[in-house]
Amino acid sequence: MNDLFEPLKSATTESVRAQIRSQAYRGHTAGLGGNTLQANLAILPEPYALDFMRYCQRNPKPCPIVGVSDTGNPNMDTLGGDIDIRTDTPAYYIYRDGIHTDTVHDLRNLWRDDFVAFALGCSFTFEHALQQAKVPLWHIENDRTVPMFATSIQTVKSGPFEGPMVVSMRAIPNARVDEVVEISRKFPLAHGGPVHWGDPAIIGIADVSSPDWGDPAPVPDGTTPMFWACGVTPQAAIKNAKPSIAITHKPGHMLITDIADDAETPIYQSR
Amino acid sequence: MNDLFEPLKSATTESVRAQIRSQAYRGHTAGLGGNTLQANLAILPEPYALDFMRYCQRNPKPCPIVGVSDTGNPNMDTLGGDIDIRTDTPAYYIYRDGIHTDTVHDLRNLWRDDFVAFALGCSFTFEHALQQAKVPLWHIENDRTVPMFATSIQTVKSGPFEGPMVVSMRAIPNARVDEVVEISRKFPLAHGGPVHWGDPAIIGIADVSSPDWGDPAPVPDGTTPMFWACGVTPQAAIKNAKPSIAITHKPGHMLITDIADDAETPIYQSR
Repeated sequence: MNDLFEPLKSATTESVRAQIRSQAYRGHTAGLGGNTLQANLAILPEPYALDFMRYCQRNPKPCPIVGVSDTGNPNMDTLGGDIDIRTDTPAYYIYRDGIHTDTVHDLRNLWRDDFVAFALGCSFTFEHALQQAKVPLWHIENDRTVPMFATSIQTVKSGPFEGPMVVSMRAIPNARVDEVVEISRKFPLAHGGPVHWGDPAIIGIADVSSPDWGDPAPVPDGTTPMFWACGVTPQAAIKNAKPSIAITHKPGHMLITDIADDAETPIYQSR
Repeated sequence: MNDLFEPLKSATTESVRAQIRSQAYRGHTAGLGGNTLQANLAILPEPYALDFMRYCQRNPKPCPIVGVSDTGNPNMDTLGGDIDIRTDTPAYYIYRDGIHTDTVHDLRNLWRDDFVAFALGCSFTFEHALQQAKVPLWHIENDRTVPMFATSIQTVKSGPFEGPMVVSMRAIPNARVDEVVEISRKFPLAHGGPVHWGDPAIIGIADVSSPDWGDPAPVPDGTTPMFWACGVTPQAAIKNAKPSIAITHKPGHMLITDIADDAETPIYQSR
């Protein structure tokens, strides 16, 4: 299945999404879709939607909202010309009562008239900008998943949604820390500037070589561990809220939108 | 009552808000509160809240969300240490079935357990940045309200909320247009970059000397009329949605928050 990955790197956004929709490609989306915004996904029954949307507004670094569907409508019209949220993400996690029970590749049999889909900005956008500035990113160069950690930073509660902020870690050469802060702050819809850098213990991380999610990554001498709010945070909040059903993307397996990653607003203009 | 205005200009945010809360001051808030974010206001019954919040997300230039209350809770805890939305805005418009019926200075008798309050970013923030860059702003120098126009640009619909985008106009010296675009784009929570500049007819404005709201302002030779999305837009959408009751601020009479106007996110950190 992943034989498709290398050719897809140079494919158009539309054709990548077509390969995902047909399930010809079910893999991760890092590096795909050119310079377009990719998004984390959360789908909830409408009775949870207002509280979840307020949770995202109150926690804009981990949960930057880039699109919200109409209730029951699987099309995300503000994010592209033809996006069906039921089929256009390579893999989905199903949570029942807050527990991850299944991983699927198509939601057409699960979709309900009361579902609301949320698309949330993801770190691929600022990583792309860092790569263009020739900042070394170890996990990308070594084809690993970025290391992620639960922290002692609590998110701002909304209704049943609450929990720790989850962060991702990138070890950055000391001389480039200030520049990396500045670059990432330019992407408020992709987690923005780091929430912390330096001593991991200050945000409750006991062992920076042992992540809670993703793969371990080294912090060599001469580098500083930098921590960004991460899109896994809302998955932790959903586990705490325990809705009878909720759906997210599988980490790394994102929705590829038609929005340019340097767009001022994430609103698709049809041509 | 406006005798208080000049002394309030140098007062702290807390003491300005105390004067508003006690109704000692009921005037406009331009230039008050130092370098803190000011906000437009919309209060709706909860059955309208999700559709309205989606409307704002889909129209981020006219309706940049900076805070949302819990249902029934008049405190806006993410915007400051002690903000009571029922008393801390100098004047409120009451709409019944989409029609503006009253102007009041206190909502304590009208507040309901099902109300949700939305605070939306306002142009005072980027105007402050333009003034610091010594860009002349005629309406401020002449103590007028900025001219506002309904346009032929349609907002993105959400449920019953729809309608034209309303814009404000500032005539900017031709040589500074590019710089003004760049400065205002830095404030996505305050309407961001202009939606149009140049020929007003292109966005459906027949006579730029005759605004729909606010005061007329000249467009002298050597200046370009520049148009920004405006916080009156959601008031037009509320008129179309016709909720049995809705409340907004009176234009120019804003909520003064404790958020620094250059903050990366509009989330108050208690000290």
